[in-house]
Amino acid sequence: MSKFLSKLALSLDPYVPGEQPKDKKYVKLNTNENPYPPSQMVQDAIASATSDLRLYPDPDATAVREAIAKYYNDALALQGDAVIDSDNVFIGNGSDEVLAFVFPTFFKGKKIAFADITYSFYPVYCALFEIPYQLIPLTEDFSYDMDAYTGAGDDIGGILLCNPNAPTGRALSLAEVETILDANRDKLVLVDEAYVDFGGETAVALVNRYDNLLVCQTLSKSRQLAGMRVGAAIACKEVIAGLNAVKNSFNSYTADRLGIAAAKAAFEDVAYFDETRNKIMATRERTVKALEAMGFDVIPSKANFVFAKPSGMPAAELFKKLRDDGILVRYFNKPRIDDRLRITIGTDEEMDAMLASARKILGK
Amino acid sequence: MSKFLSKLALSLDPYVPGEQPKDKKYVKLNTNENPYPPSQMVQDAIASATSDLRLYPDPDATAVREAIAKYYNDALALQGDAVIDSDNVFIGNGSDEVLAFVFPTFFKGKKIAFADITYSFYPVYCALFEIPYQLIPLTEDFSYDMDAYTGAGDDIGGILLCNPNAPTGRALSLAEVETILDANRDKLVLVDEAYVDFGGETAVALVNRYDNLLVCQTLSKSRQLAGMRVGAAIACKEVIAGLNAVKNSFNSYTADRLGIAAAKAAFEDVAYFDETRNKIMATRERTVKALEAMGFDVIPSKANFVFAKPSGMPAAELFKKLRDDGILVRYFNKPRIDDRLRITIGTDEEMDAMLASARKILGK
Repeated sequence: MSKFLSKLALSLDPYVPGEQPKDKKYVKLNTNENPYPPSQMVQDAIASATSDLRLYPDPDATAVREAIAKYYNDALALQGDAVIDSDNVFIGNGSDEVLAFVFPTFFKGKKIAFADITYSFYPVYCALFEIPYQLIPLTEDFSYDMDAYTGAGDDIGGILLCNPNAPTGRALSLAEVETILDANRDKLVLVDEAYVDFGGETAVALVNRYDNLLVCQTLSKSRQLAGMRVGAAIACKEVIAGLNAVKNSFNSYTADRLGIAAAKAAFEDVAYFDETRNKIMATRERTVKALEAMGFDVIPSKANFVFAKPSGMPAAELFKKLRDDGILVRYFNKPRIDDRLRITIGTDEEMDAMLASARKILGK
Repeated sequence: MSKFLSKLALSLDPYVPGEQPKDKKYVKLNTNENPYPPSQMVQDAIASATSDLRLYPDPDATAVREAIAKYYNDALALQGDAVIDSDNVFIGNGSDEVLAFVFPTFFKGKKIAFADITYSFYPVYCALFEIPYQLIPLTEDFSYDMDAYTGAGDDIGGILLCNPNAPTGRALSLAEVETILDANRDKLVLVDEAYVDFGGETAVALVNRYDNLLVCQTLSKSRQLAGMRVGAAIACKEVIAGLNAVKNSFNSYTADRLGIAAAKAAFEDVAYFDETRNKIMATRERTVKALEAMGFDVIPSKANFVFAKPSGMPAAELFKKLRDDGILVRYFNKPRIDDRLRITIGTDEEMDAMLASARKILGK
């Protein structure tokens, strides 16, 4: 270990992403990637942008910000004050980076609150930016405890909601999100919508009505660009301006030319986006029925994964046996959830392979 | 301004990169971009990698790290203990991000030292990560003050050297860098080699001999990939492990699939790299002679830019008149350097256009 490490660096316990194994070909259902490739429009946009790579990108990624604003104005039929424009949008190098900027921008010097079972990167950011936090336990059925969020104390300066939540897949309704926003006008509320396009309700329509709302999204899941690293924040203009101040103190150019071109095209190709997310939702419903028929307990999911408890075998053992059989899912060895597996929704063929393997292993 | 901003965010004075104007076509000599496109190998590598963008990239960017180690082992003919491997290399989203990780990893809780005239992002990082710093004035001819660096006090926990320095272009020899490393065995010394490939001497051969050395490089200048955002740190393995702990607490996937593919190819295509950097160095020497013939005072440069003081007109006025004439260079309105212009070395044709414009404006 280097003797030059700061005390801060020595104190860290980094986030561990799902494995990206290279040893053999797996049916890879462990990192919530999209089973379908990016749209042809995205691939064409990348090819067109390659010739200018000697030049720095637009540090403000304006082309994507405009495309995102247009997408939501159209998709949500926003009217009047609810209409957003590019100044309501911030672009980062994946939504993990967007989240990483949110912490020093809004939470430094405060205490924040989030669920005991949620995206496990949140406590890692808290450690890096030295921000204390309070965990709010999910209820027994893994729902958010609405009373705890509407009654959050004055000592709490910020709230994180992952909606739909990970790894549970369970979603708050838009009305519930608004109830929480309304009860916490003095706290910034980050709504992490990484999985919202698979059946959840986005809060984007509220950003101009709630100056305490920051919506975070990613192009890694519903828009097939995990390999490209583009994420976005959508909020009122004053909140976005704050994010820019921190980003421009860290890295002038977080999104590259190909990422900007790809992300713009991904938001413009609405037909492909709808086609692929609808396919994934249909595959999810089929998969849930098949898992339930095998005796799994499956939490209702609005995400591109399901969080399922097997019967007849501990989850850790099933995880290992599926892995040996070439099926990669995610197992979290953590309290309350160590009896479940998080299974990404792939193609119908991939899910059939997973289901057949599980039936064989469980003898069902 | 958002009422939710942290005190830290309110205190920031972000870095301002050189402008990327969209109003008209300029001869763009203001942001030290390379005038030549990425090599055909790089463009082919990007095209091949596009099909897998639905999948997350390798979080460790191993393919680039191996290519960089191989490049330096060959180029510097490293032998024995000096040989480096992929564990000596760290990849970030541009060298600005690599620098941004160095600050919390090694300097948090310490005081650091760097030159009064150097890359102006360094004090911005210090503000973001709340790290105090001491400025060490360059000598009158804009050299590093060797005595100040070899005699840095015990209160200093880290040293930053930009070599060649920006915006001066002046370089320390490898022997001078080693003298500073040797005199500061108890301090991490960051050597920022963004411009080293244009005639400077890299310190990479020393990373296994000095556990206090961290070399930072970028693919934005000599390797034509400003638009792609890839930077690297090269150091002993313990130092690299420390950087990884912080990076993995911030963003698991800083380099994207296309960046990894492009950067690997850029380090593999040694012939194109040498051809283009040699062209730029030859153009620089021609340009310096022509500027001196016009009465400019030019600091000897080992970078892809020159820092030149005009005669017969204030630099600020010449900057503006060049801009009106379609020639974009960089002017810093800062003490000691507000009488100079930083002029990027473009193609011979671009430099001829700049020189012709300057002659016309100055009446020479």
